[in-house]
Amino acid sequence: MGKVGKRQGAAAPEYTVGLDIGGTKILGALLDPAGEVVATVRRSTVHGADGLVAGAAGAVREVVESGGVELAAVVGVGLGIPGIVDHVSGTVKHAVNLGVHDDELPLADLLSLALGGVPVVVENDLNVAAVGAAHVLERSENSERGAAEHEDLAFLALGTGLASGLVLDGELRRGASGAAGEIGHIPVDPLGPECPCGQRGCLERFASGKALEAAWPSRHGKPAPVELFEAARAGDEEAVAVKDRFAAATASAVRLLVLTTDVRHVVLGGGVAQLGTELLVAVQDALREQAKVSAFLGSLKLAERVSLAPTHVPVAAVGAAVLGRRS
Amino acid sequence: MGKVGKRQGAAAPEYTVGLDIGGTKILGALLDPAGEVVATVRRSTVHGADGLVAGAAGAVREVVESGGVELAAVVGVGLGIPGIVDHVSGTVKHAVNLGVHDDELPLADLLSLALGGVPVVVENDLNVAAVGAAHVLERSENSERGAAEHEDLAFLALGTGLASGLVLDGELRRGASGAAGEIGHIPVDPLGPECPCGQRGCLERFASGKALEAAWPSRHGKPAPVELFEAARAGDEEAVAVKDRFAAATASAVRLLVLTTDVRHVVLGGGVAQLGTELLVAVQDALREQAKVSAFLGSLKLAERVSLAPTHVPVAAVGAAVLGRRS
Repeated sequence: MGKVGKRQGAAAPEYTVGLDIGGTKILGALLDPAGEVVATVRRSTVHGADGLVAGAAGAVREVVESGGVELAAVVGVGLGIPGIVDHVSGTVKHAVNLGVHDDELPLADLLSLALGGVPVVVENDLNVAAVGAAHVLERSENSERGAAEHEDLAFLALGTGLASGLVLDGELRRGASGAAGEIGHIPVDPLGPECPCGQRGCLERFASGKALEAAWPSRHGKPAPVELFEAARAGDEEAVAVKDRFAAATASAVRLLVLTTDVRHVVLGGGVAQLGTELLVAVQDALREQAKVSAFLGSLKLAERVSLAPTHVPVAAVGAAVLGRRS
Repeated sequence: MGKVGKRQGAAAPEYTVGLDIGGTKILGALLDPAGEVVATVRRSTVHGADGLVAGAAGAVREVVESGGVELAAVVGVGLGIPGIVDHVSGTVKHAVNLGVHDDELPLADLLSLALGGVPVVVENDLNVAAVGAAHVLERSENSERGAAEHEDLAFLALGTGLASGLVLDGELRRGASGAAGEIGHIPVDPLGPECPCGQRGCLERFASGKALEAAWPSRHGKPAPVELFEAARAGDEEAVAVKDRFAAATASAVRLLVLTTDVRHVVLGGGVAQLGTELLVAVQDALREQAKVSAFLGSLKLAERVSLAPTHVPVAAVGAAVLGRRS
């Protein structure tokens, strides 16, 4: 596999498109040959195999047109999909939240056909998010440094569940069975609550959107994380305690990622990360608090490694487009 | 960095030497251009900077002579050292158990000088062990498969403490701050015992030689792990319980490594692994037991990923010699 964000040769137009296909919406991005995002698109997901392929093809055509280029200038398309993806065969299994119940949908081939033969690659959503975050970070850091350096990060997705995507020294790390980054199901408390995975005290039971909602259910129609942080800001003691526990658990996830892979950056993403700076500060405070008792932890400078996923671009779609360059 | 175990070109003799320098002994290996171990050596460590350099130089000359080649045929020497190593500058810091109290000992330069200019690289002991295990495994698997495949493994060292070295898809993973694989200090039990690192309930407090000795102190002059397993075999109920807890904790370390990095193999090494097959079976049983409650864990086939570090060659010295090829 090539390096993330590296141009592959200096041939003719090398535009690529990336799509981040979720249960409710498709986000798309067009990357120009220099790796710049030149157009983005957003449309609703149509469920079911046929709708999915047609919707994806429509999104590709729309973002290409919006970028002012021809589909013929696009050398590859990348897709990010939640669920079990075989990136080699380009198939998707049991993408239930996309209304795909087929045992195995040859999504790459079907979309390629619908687009007149453009090569298509499929990857899971966390992996494209990690690649996208690495691409954006690498470009901004290299422009500051004036020198190319490979990115090295974990994309820590605080979604309904908890999982991460890894880009290690510029390479997407999938692992031997595609399970790299599945830290949500590492038990961290023998007396913790049972997890649907069958184990007890999994990290996901403490650091995820689901865990947060269970501890602080939405009461006023806003997302639970927003209501929790509002209540904590207003001085509600219970809210402060729930928020602190959540921040500490998220900090534990960061610590676990660094003590295992020693990634240079941990980028917070997923639904809960829409809280923005307030979440980042809470997690950094928790990391500093944890480091107080341990010179060893302190030496790792964990708080400095954490940042929020870029929000000015659809980062997963950008990552999908980066992977589309290698198709 | 190059791939582990790959020949770099097909030029003239490319013999390399690797040394695994421990607190009591130096193990050395000579690799021929094909990557075969053609000679090994073992001698006592002489403490202090001067003794260390002279002893290392002597070990290199001895293993070269024993292999029937000239020192001039050696293109590089690799050293594995416990402690804080700067692999870029070739310096070692505070290698207290080697009697080196200098702030920074330029070990690579000093040894190179003592050997008439042969390039020398220095790496920490777990990293060379991981590279060595990958080299040995890759050669045996590739000879079975008849095709080259990059190795992917964690070397899980059950020594006094607990830590691991990682070779991911053929590349040594050091991490952004050299902390990759430091899983011993990931807390896994909020109510667990305090750890000298300052945290509480670190994995190392449950799965390490030190943890095992604390739970089952040596009473008959044999190493604590040996006495524990003997007592368990003899039916001592307390010993069985201690053994089971130790195996379960080691299994947790395996699970943690796979759920984070998804390495294809986890190789058990370090002092406790000298127990051999009995340890392997205990850890595999614990992994199967843990997988019983979780289809997700079961799908990862953790028990099948675990093996014992090769004992027919000094694996860390071999890894150091592999790294010497890149000096």
